[in-house]
Amino acid sequence: MHYPEPISKLIDSFMKLPGIGPKTAARLAFFVLSMKEETVLDFAKALVDAKRNLSYCSICGHITDVDPCQICQDQHRDKTMICVVQDPKDVIAMEKMRDYNGLYHVLHGAISPMDGIGPEDINVPSLLKRLQDEEEVKELILATNPTIEGEATAMYISRLVKPSGIRTTRIAHGLPVGGDLEYADEVTLSKAVEGRREI
Amino acid sequence: MHYPEPISKLIDSFMKLPGIGPKTAARLAFFVLSMKEETVLDFAKALVDAKRNLSYCSICGHITDVDPCQICQDQHRDKTMICVVQDPKDVIAMEKMRDYNGLYHVLHGAISPMDGIGPEDINVPSLLKRLQDEEEVKELILATNPTIEGEATAMYISRLVKPSGIRTTRIAHGLPVGGDLEYADEVTLSKAVEGRREI
Repeated sequence: MHYPEPISKLIDSFMKLPGIGPKTAARLAFFVLSMKEETVLDFAKALVDAKRNLSYCSICGHITDVDPCQICQDQHRDKTMICVVQDPKDVIAMEKMRDYNGLYHVLHGAISPMDGIGPEDINVPSLLKRLQDEEEVKELILATNPTIEGEATAMYISRLVKPSGIRTTRIAHGLPVGGDLEYADEVTLSKAVEGRREI
Repeated sequence: MHYPEPISKLIDSFMKLPGIGPKTAARLAFFVLSMKEETVLDFAKALVDAKRNLSYCSICGHITDVDPCQICQDQHRDKTMICVVQDPKDVIAMEKMRDYNGLYHVLHGAISPMDGIGPEDINVPSLLKRLQDEEEVKELILATNPTIEGEATAMYISRLVKPSGIRTTRIAHGLPVGGDLEYADEVTLSKAVEGRREI
């Protein structure tokens, strides 16, 4: 006999989450037992609510509880710019910056032939359709991750979009602010030199 | 605007768990969105069930869904031995060993004057009462943690119980199996030498 059934079920549930092994799951499950009943009920409700009430925006693909999402609905945003990102979390990161006031398009992934993910498997077709339908778009900022897949995706989209006359830009690569030249990898450093600007 | 409300509530709930900060909480919350609805419902149910259906055994203090717990109820167990541990997780560790067939008593803590925790604040009184009531107990194995508090608790209980004629033993200190003499700390090594046995 090991754990009583209710706790072993809870441990199993925690173990389904990424990065949580049996020891951590047991620790979390025991912690739940020490929490107030109200807090645990809130947690359970939050789980179900998040799963049931959230969906993806039919326009930009961002995660949302209303459709279209608040960003797409917002009349104060600059509708001439669309920033293309891989993931809803990237939208949050961009929004935290508070510098960007345009719209978004979330691809939900990147092109990766090694994993059998082509442009049709991510939100590229919906982006192209959106660019055709919304004539006011003037600039497409490609903010996919600076990885091989992200670069390939940015390159692919820019080649498709450029002929239509829309300006396509790629976010800059270089040293992170607060970083150290000494510890920068060669590729980043070479990108930083390549992208140097007059001051 | 940051996350839509349902997801920010879920992130808040995850952040209440120990060792989970904002970044991990966001990662877990997004993972929940990608899980099957059924799995999420099971998770929510497991949370509520664990909180509602589990309590502590009125005899030994171990966590259980039936009272008395399965170990206390089991007629095949050796009722002449009680192993005193600090935590329900320690019972699980002992059970995994499969070598021990006696009963348990879970203290839910250790005596720690620094934190204002005295013998009355942990399950010591219930242990003493149990030893008085159950006359068949012949040995009390003190398996509190090998820390200052655990040692003090073991010492305290053994002094109280010894006059009654019950044998009190302390689990051995020494090198962990598979350990390395070179990396053992001085105190462990000195305990290992002290506890040496003829072979």
